[in-house]
Amino acid sequence: MSADDLFRTLLERWGPSKVTMDQGRLAPHLEEWRGRSVGHAPFLAEPASTEEVSELVGLCAEHGVPITLQGGNTGLVLGQQPKGEILLSTRRMDRIRSVDAAADAVIAESGVVLARIQEAAEAAQRLFPLSLGSQGSATIGGLLSTNAGGVHVLRYGMMRDLTLGIEAVLPDGRIVRDLNSLRKNNTGYDLKSLLIGAEGTLGVITAATLRLFPKPSGRTVAMAALNTPDDAIALLQRAKARSNALSAFELMNETSIRYTLPLPGIRAPFSTTPPWTALLEFERFGDEQDQLSEIEDILAASVESGVILDAVVAQTLEAAAAFWRLRETLPAGHRSVGRPSVNHDVSTPVSRVPEFMRRAGILIQTLSPGAEMIAFGHAGDGNTHLTAIAAEGASFDKAAISTAIHDLVADLGGSISAEHGIGVSRKDDFLRYKDPTAVAVMRSIKAALDPKGILNPRVLF
Amino acid sequence: MSADDLFRTLLERWGPSKVTMDQGRLAPHLEEWRGRSVGHAPFLAEPASTEEVSELVGLCAEHGVPITLQGGNTGLVLGQQPKGEILLSTRRMDRIRSVDAAADAVIAESGVVLARIQEAAEAAQRLFPLSLGSQGSATIGGLLSTNAGGVHVLRYGMMRDLTLGIEAVLPDGRIVRDLNSLRKNNTGYDLKSLLIGAEGTLGVITAATLRLFPKPSGRTVAMAALNTPDDAIALLQRAKARSNALSAFELMNETSIRYTLPLPGIRAPFSTTPPWTALLEFERFGDEQDQLSEIEDILAASVESGVILDAVVAQTLEAAAAFWRLRETLPAGHRSVGRPSVNHDVSTPVSRVPEFMRRAGILIQTLSPGAEMIAFGHAGDGNTHLTAIAAEGASFDKAAISTAIHDLVADLGGSISAEHGIGVSRKDDFLRYKDPTAVAVMRSIKAALDPKGILNPRVLF
Repeated sequence: MSADDLFRTLLERWGPSKVTMDQGRLAPHLEEWRGRSVGHAPFLAEPASTEEVSELVGLCAEHGVPITLQGGNTGLVLGQQPKGEILLSTRRMDRIRSVDAAADAVIAESGVVLARIQEAAEAAQRLFPLSLGSQGSATIGGLLSTNAGGVHVLRYGMMRDLTLGIEAVLPDGRIVRDLNSLRKNNTGYDLKSLLIGAEGTLGVITAATLRLFPKPSGRTVAMAALNTPDDAIALLQRAKARSNALSAFELMNETSIRYTLPLPGIRAPFSTTPPWTALLEFERFGDEQDQLSEIEDILAASVESGVILDAVVAQTLEAAAAFWRLRETLPAGHRSVGRPSVNHDVSTPVSRVPEFMRRAGILIQTLSPGAEMIAFGHAGDGNTHLTAIAAEGASFDKAAISTAIHDLVADLGGSISAEHGIGVSRKDDFLRYKDPTAVAVMRSIKAALDPKGILNPRVLF
Repeated sequence: MSADDLFRTLLERWGPSKVTMDQGRLAPHLEEWRGRSVGHAPFLAEPASTEEVSELVGLCAEHGVPITLQGGNTGLVLGQQPKGEILLSTRRMDRIRSVDAAADAVIAESGVVLARIQEAAEAAQRLFPLSLGSQGSATIGGLLSTNAGGVHVLRYGMMRDLTLGIEAVLPDGRIVRDLNSLRKNNTGYDLKSLLIGAEGTLGVITAATLRLFPKPSGRTVAMAALNTPDDAIALLQRAKARSNALSAFELMNETSIRYTLPLPGIRAPFSTTPPWTALLEFERFGDEQDQLSEIEDILAASVESGVILDAVVAQTLEAAAAFWRLRETLPAGHRSVGRPSVNHDVSTPVSRVPEFMRRAGILIQTLSPGAEMIAFGHAGDGNTHLTAIAAEGASFDKAAISTAIHDLVADLGGSISAEHGIGVSRKDDFLRYKDPTAVAVMRSIKAALDPKGILNPRVLF
């Protein structure tokens, strides 16, 4: 059965609302969201239920027709962009099936947008802690498939850590149903963790049970001015030793802030931007004044001992939001520069972040004199988003820079993809840096579960 | 090659210290630690390095000789007991390879006993939070293979959540090396989570990178007297909403305490044992007096509103240790009874623990009038250890009681093995209650990685 035959079969069974060849409906699904490339697909399928996903995948398996999966189309590694495969969008599966505050669990279908989960948790006096820039459009299915991270990993972990149960359609169309809301369940292999982060190559995640947490009564946000990343890690260690409420620790270099300050709605936390700025967020469960004085103690002691240059604690919700707005706008800030650039999403052990920053700066200068380094990210988890931007008119070999950065990361025991995943664009690096035996095991698992290679066939391997 | 030939080959290569047929050396490895049964093995192999494990497993794979793996021999489901397979003990691989306080990570070989990890963390001013009754003899390899839980899961999660990297020998002898200490690393399938909890059927875990945490400056432990499990869950919810430092919440029924009080060194927390007793532990990072008054506030408000009958906060380290000693001695307490009994290690959503307790009590009375129910466990995670003990001389059908309890658990969306695993003794229940598609996927993975079925061949399936 060709893709055309499959289209006609589905059109007959499902009707035109769920399957289309209309280029107008396809177009927003085909373009990479930053406009980097345009894909193509014979048709778009938008099943509305797990059973319809199963029907589609079963037919594709039977006839060997490959599928590319897509959620909110916010991925950064091209995993969601079809190149001739059928495009399966999960966006119509957008029901929150249940919110159980007493069990601290919400069951949501894969097409639900993250912000809706956050709101549902809030309405139940609970917290769903995953938080990232694209939360208004990223879907649960995509966030699960890429094991998304964001700014609260330090305290709550990544998407895999936030998931209790899963429902998925396997590459042969069978459905695995395990939407439990259990904290402890030692019955066989951890298929949930295997499907999460598999980037859609082992199954189509159709729903998940997500963990809810007690809702803090508030948050205190502070900015600290620093001379070096070493000082930042020293501040992090102090904050972790003194408080068990640290929920975010973000680090930004001066260059990253400089390109962002001109954007609308952005305010500078310090009159002169220091070499490095840390954003600290603490959740509050007890008394507000107690927490403020605890945090002011930590910061004052750090100023006194020379670890930080200056600090400012947000005194209003608006000020706290402005601190976060600066941090969240950094990617837009550096996209606005317009000169050639190359991005990295890497991690190292937290203790080696300073060495990574230092050596990365030297490497970039060596390979492209005058280039600028934009470095920011989740220093509390060892995750740095690092971009090199060419000097005006300078020669700039993106591949050489990336290889040097990734070699450095490997030397420091780090990862070449901390939270964005491998997708299509990081495949070469994945195969270059990952333990070959581990890759061989992954291939065995892929072959065992998807022998015809129909799910996301160009992703990972 | 027979097992005898393999023995001679290894004896020649490794010498008599690492491979033996001596029954005196074998005996302590063959007997189930509670004396329930005795296994048998052609010989015992005690490799001292990952390379030696690889050599042994490679030879076994080549010649189709099955292996049973054993760590501290503290398992509760017979997974570690050989029945004719070669016995591979990991106890000689007992090096702590590194303790890196700055990266909050320790790398330990699989034969290291849990208590040594706790001590190494303590010496580095850090915490390794896994804590359970057998910590003086359980090894890291066994704890990983069974995804061990214990009393601090509420705050820190299970062994899988506490592990950053892994090294393992695959069923064909190849070595997967991924001892990273990264918090974020999205590069392919989560082989670590797959190997953890696989009960030794997919590989021999030889070492792991374990997460360390800031060391609390102290802990406050309290006991609360309660009328019902509903009140216990209400107290849990209050404690979680008011404090972010709750690190354990254990629940014990009156019967479980009654059988334990006669044991040496055990003190009653209340002059009359209430129907239910909760043990609460809070970690301390800030001021001791602040925390004591916060906890006293929570408990006083709960007494006032009728959620709890009475409460006592340990005022000394010795008193706190006595509270924990009572809790940890409960299993020995009920083993001392001497009448027929049957154990369960089950979980439900936390919110359904009260319903489970109520209905389990009725079921046991219906099936064996006069039988006693011992119920205790990690209520904060929904995990109950439930034992039915026959009345003197009464008829008592263990299988019928277990089936009824497990049917009830399934009805409540729970798990028939919360933390002990499946091993050999829970296989029938596993196949009965687990989603058959999930089991089929697990079988596919086992067949892909261990096509000859040489690793722990009687475990799980």
